[in-house]
Amino acid sequence: MSTQSAADRLALIERNTTEVMGRDDLLALLGTPTPIRHYIGYEISGKVHLGSGLVAMGKVRDFLDAGVACHVLLADWHTWINDKLGGDREVIRRIATGYFTEAMRASLLAVGADPSRVHFVLGTDLYDNNPDYWRTVIEVSRHTSLARMLRSISILGREQSDSVDFAKLIYPAMQAADIFVQGINLAHAGTEQRKAHVIARDVATRIRTNGLTDSEGHTIKPAAVHHPLLLGLRKPPVWPLPDDVDPETLKMSKSDPSSAVFIHDDPDTIRRRVAKAFCPPQETRFNPVLNWFEQLVFAFDDAPLRIDRSEANGGVITFETYTDLAGAYGRGMLHPSDAKNALTERLIERLEPARAHFAKPEVAAMLADLDAVLARTR
Amino acid sequence: MSTQSAADRLALIERNTTEVMGRDDLLALLGTPTPIRHYIGYEISGKVHLGSGLVAMGKVRDFLDAGVACHVLLADWHTWINDKLGGDREVIRRIATGYFTEAMRASLLAVGADPSRVHFVLGTDLYDNNPDYWRTVIEVSRHTSLARMLRSISILGREQSDSVDFAKLIYPAMQAADIFVQGINLAHAGTEQRKAHVIARDVATRIRTNGLTDSEGHTIKPAAVHHPLLLGLRKPPVWPLPDDVDPETLKMSKSDPSSAVFIHDDPDTIRRRVAKAFCPPQETRFNPVLNWFEQLVFAFDDAPLRIDRSEANGGVITFETYTDLAGAYGRGMLHPSDAKNALTERLIERLEPARAHFAKPEVAAMLADLDAVLARTR
Repeated sequence: MSTQSAADRLALIERNTTEVMGRDDLLALLGTPTPIRHYIGYEISGKVHLGSGLVAMGKVRDFLDAGVACHVLLADWHTWINDKLGGDREVIRRIATGYFTEAMRASLLAVGADPSRVHFVLGTDLYDNNPDYWRTVIEVSRHTSLARMLRSISILGREQSDSVDFAKLIYPAMQAADIFVQGINLAHAGTEQRKAHVIARDVATRIRTNGLTDSEGHTIKPAAVHHPLLLGLRKPPVWPLPDDVDPETLKMSKSDPSSAVFIHDDPDTIRRRVAKAFCPPQETRFNPVLNWFEQLVFAFDDAPLRIDRSEANGGVITFETYTDLAGAYGRGMLHPSDAKNALTERLIERLEPARAHFAKPEVAAMLADLDAVLARTR
Repeated sequence: MSTQSAADRLALIERNTTEVMGRDDLLALLGTPTPIRHYIGYEISGKVHLGSGLVAMGKVRDFLDAGVACHVLLADWHTWINDKLGGDREVIRRIATGYFTEAMRASLLAVGADPSRVHFVLGTDLYDNNPDYWRTVIEVSRHTSLARMLRSISILGREQSDSVDFAKLIYPAMQAADIFVQGINLAHAGTEQRKAHVIARDVATRIRTNGLTDSEGHTIKPAAVHHPLLLGLRKPPVWPLPDDVDPETLKMSKSDPSSAVFIHDDPDTIRRRVAKAFCPPQETRFNPVLNWFEQLVFAFDDAPLRIDRSEANGGVITFETYTDLAGAYGRGMLHPSDAKNALTERLIERLEPARAHFAKPEVAAMLADLDAVLARTR
């Protein structure tokens, strides 16, 4: 790693992201001996789909390649606050350290990263081992207005905000505190979590407990990197999309399996899901099949993509970049069926290491455990 | 204590209060072997005046007499959240366990209670020794809406509530959690804190961590007892009072020494303060001198009050009850000067044990410590 320049490391960190908040600060930090510490936090709810799995862990692979220390926070408290898995703390903890951890390891294997290089941290352990954790939560809160806290959670109007259970508002303060108590200078999440990172950056220079410093002891703000959301496979309820569509409503959801592929799905399931996917001809915007090509194929493979069509459909075609593929699709030169078939093949291949991981009996048992919990709590 | 009936104990508990929330529950509880555990929490800010000191500790005397285990929570976290004493945690802790504890002991001595029977608990110690404290804070929050939390703090309009620092809203959730982690079934405060007690009672049967139970293991709600506020000595800014006056604005404030007497004030200071007090002739409503007679003289003394006036002013007069005194004052049969002189004498006498306590060099040093802190932080 020591041979990489700061610019090279930054290039790895920011590829396939929607933004790097504090990019200049991060570049400066990369020029110092300060170790870069990354984390991404997860609520433990259902099965791990390709968004949480491949997209996020693809970025973790990049971070590892850039010499960053990577952490996955198994956010059991946040899961509990959001009433997932029946709000049962013991179950949440068991699924977090069992199924969920293995699903993330499987995802890391699928993107070609070494799972043993990623640290898994359970929220409860983090908080119990940091006597100042809650002090940091309060400090973050002291420097954040109610209005800002409300904006950081997905709430529509006044009435809805009045009736929100108050723990939901403590949640973003805890997210910010998670960053500080772990000494994270590179926070990572999907774009939908950016507001919590804005809060963390806003309060970073004002908190007096667990403040971040660089290798020279100067107070710094955490940089934050956001990967794009992965579209769900279903046709949106309104199409064409209204101008003011919230992209958040289009993302893949584990609560709607027909919109999703899970990292341990078998080839037949993958074939079935992709075959049924919404894929409007010549439309590249908000087309999930195209979106998956961009984020799940070209984001990972440096090699050109070769699609073996029948001679009747145009024969073999090769794309160097996603832009090339999208261009051809937009001009009607790639049929939705051929696109889906090619995507299916690539996904089946990409996920082979994840399936192999879940073929181990002890890991398969963890998935069965989750299935039983989900059947009970839904 | 075992010879007291439940009704006798309840009579002691509720004398000189504005309300006992959950009175029927408490009466039922007093009929069981369940120990009654009381607490009152204090922010540590400035000097202890007669409201925090005599009125509150007068009730503690009653609770002790009723066989209740009494606790004073030195709320250092709450003090810090409200930026008192410069928001310096070390200073807050030192003043809490030093000056403030001794001032409460002095107050207990002044009302004729034994300070060694009251437990003083530092917030930090309470939280550090209860791994589930913060879980309880979150549980309380899960069962409380934002609107309710907002109503529990003193906030006027929407705009003000939007800009409130978020920690101020966690404060009432912590107050409720304080009750549960201490196993308190008799919470106690001035009337201005009742909303936090309402929250605690509302969530009591829904929380799963640190829930309260009686001696038979049944889940119970904490009862809550509120003592009346003690009026400040100054003339209110608007007089006669508007119909919609918030009594809270009339209470004694330690930040306005001319409105207050502190429990360690010397006789000359007491004389000067009372002599200057607002005391409209024949007006008994919101008259601080009359209010003090009710709460600081008749509340404590079973004996009749004898006032030695000059023959010209009507000679010796004796009142059996506060109602008698107020009636005479309202009819113009007791002059404000005579009332003030009599009140002054009684206060000087009542506070003698507190002054003696603060005459001890090590206790006097604690007051000097507070004075130095206040000079620095104001």
